[in-house]
Amino acid sequence: MVPLLEEIRDVRSAVASARREGKIVGLVPTMGALHAGHARLIERCRAESGFVVVSIFVNPTQFGPNEDYQRYPRTIENDLNVCRDAGADLIFAPSVSTMYPRGASSTFVEVPGLSEKLEGASRPGHFRGVATVVLKLFEIVRPDLAFFGEKDYQQLLVIRRMVDDLNVPVEIRPVPTVREEDGLALSSRNRYLDPDQRRAARVLSQALQRAKQAVADGERSADRVRQILRERIELEGWANLDYAEVADAETLDPATEVGAGLRAVALLAVRFGTTRLIDNAILSG
Amino acid sequence: MVPLLEEIRDVRSAVASARREGKIVGLVPTMGALHAGHARLIERCRAESGFVVVSIFVNPTQFGPNEDYQRYPRTIENDLNVCRDAGADLIFAPSVSTMYPRGASSTFVEVPGLSEKLEGASRPGHFRGVATVVLKLFEIVRPDLAFFGEKDYQQLLVIRRMVDDLNVPVEIRPVPTVREEDGLALSSRNRYLDPDQRRAARVLSQALQRAKQAVADGERSADRVRQILRERIELEGWANLDYAEVADAETLDPATEVGAGLRAVALLAVRFGTTRLIDNAILSG
Repeated sequence: MVPLLEEIRDVRSAVASARREGKIVGLVPTMGALHAGHARLIERCRAESGFVVVSIFVNPTQFGPNEDYQRYPRTIENDLNVCRDAGADLIFAPSVSTMYPRGASSTFVEVPGLSEKLEGASRPGHFRGVATVVLKLFEIVRPDLAFFGEKDYQQLLVIRRMVDDLNVPVEIRPVPTVREEDGLALSSRNRYLDPDQRRAARVLSQALQRAKQAVADGERSADRVRQILRERIELEGWANLDYAEVADAETLDPATEVGAGLRAVALLAVRFGTTRLIDNAILSG
Repeated sequence: MVPLLEEIRDVRSAVASARREGKIVGLVPTMGALHAGHARLIERCRAESGFVVVSIFVNPTQFGPNEDYQRYPRTIENDLNVCRDAGADLIFAPSVSTMYPRGASSTFVEVPGLSEKLEGASRPGHFRGVATVVLKLFEIVRPDLAFFGEKDYQQLLVIRRMVDDLNVPVEIRPVPTVREEDGLALSSRNRYLDPDQRRAARVLSQALQRAKQAVADGERSADRVRQILRERIELEGWANLDYAEVADAETLDPATEVGAGLRAVALLAVRFGTTRLIDNAILSG
């Protein structure tokens, strides 16, 4: 089995050994409940790194008070198998008190500009929690490379911005979203869906496909693309739209135009009962 | 002369060379205008490190809008001599645009609890600026050791808290305050004082001495020690008291008692005309 370490000093010691052997160190930060999307991240890390660290930590500070921190799936036995099969060298699974010994009043990292929009507007404090825990993981592991899924597109931008602004010497590698056969992006939260909701959840990737097709067919108005996204989702009775946005793919500022050398991204958040799913697609540029 | 580098990549490359030679890397972050207090920091760094980096950067984000950022002394020729004489191996003196290429909307670090008190109350945003620039310098240099003066006592606590909370693997070494013969703590801002203000400025160390003496003589009431500090400063016509506090030496929460196993610190901020000076003394523990 892949060694599972809970203590920071043990991780540092293992990473230091790998470094002495001249190995490139790669990190895949996760919240566990690993699926084939995570496996892809680990495999990509394996391909580029001599030493592959997977962190498994359900980070309380990125959940809002009414969110699913308590019921977030914990599947450590399966996670160990996924890590082994995908080629991890070490799993770091700290306790909450190891990561936050001083509790909620700890030092935090804020990435202004990107953090307040979209997911940040729906989930206040979410990206502060993400940025802070990822920086802590970077300081604990000090990886050369770190791998993040494009499924969490805004998170990827926030992490990149943080690393740039704070001069953290780690290369951020984005990894394409892995999807079910019907297009649903893999997510640890998909397991919350009942059969009706699971069928309905196809609407995210379907709406994004329609938007991409419209842009490929020459649509230039971001507002009309937003309308295409909204209309497709509103057709699905089990779906409740949180947001459907077309934004600049770097700043996430709302776009007015798409295509013609403008990098635009469509971003969706949709609720199915109490389960909230997100997805995105690059539209142009 | 000591090499002076302005670019982050050049500093990283020089530090990487030192590391390959197995050297311990020490950092002394400064805002320039170096005096014998800084020299002491550099000498202490020299004694413990194989490679001594001094950063010189007047950090705009730690100055308030009505503070002395523009007129803060820049004395680079003298600074180079101080660095050479004290044994620095490398000076990192970046431009503002090198440190903040995206301007004021950059990612920041906040150390709640400690940052709002005392200096933070008088200088809103000050410690956010300090914590952020110090973390950036730590990420650029990745030192094993970093040296900070006890003169800026609250800053020392903020940096230690940040490093603990964010798991930054750097050892913070405090260095005792260097004083003039009459007791005035060395500060780059002392040069702003006119002769009357300079004489009056002795009142900081004198007040602290009286407070220490009172505690040594058995005083246990923090309020009475505060009164001793205030009364001594109010005797000095050129001095305007900003704050005189007696606080827990770790949390900076106001103390009710001193002595008897309680670690207490006295902290002063006093204005002389437009010049604001700070000083402190450990009272007990």
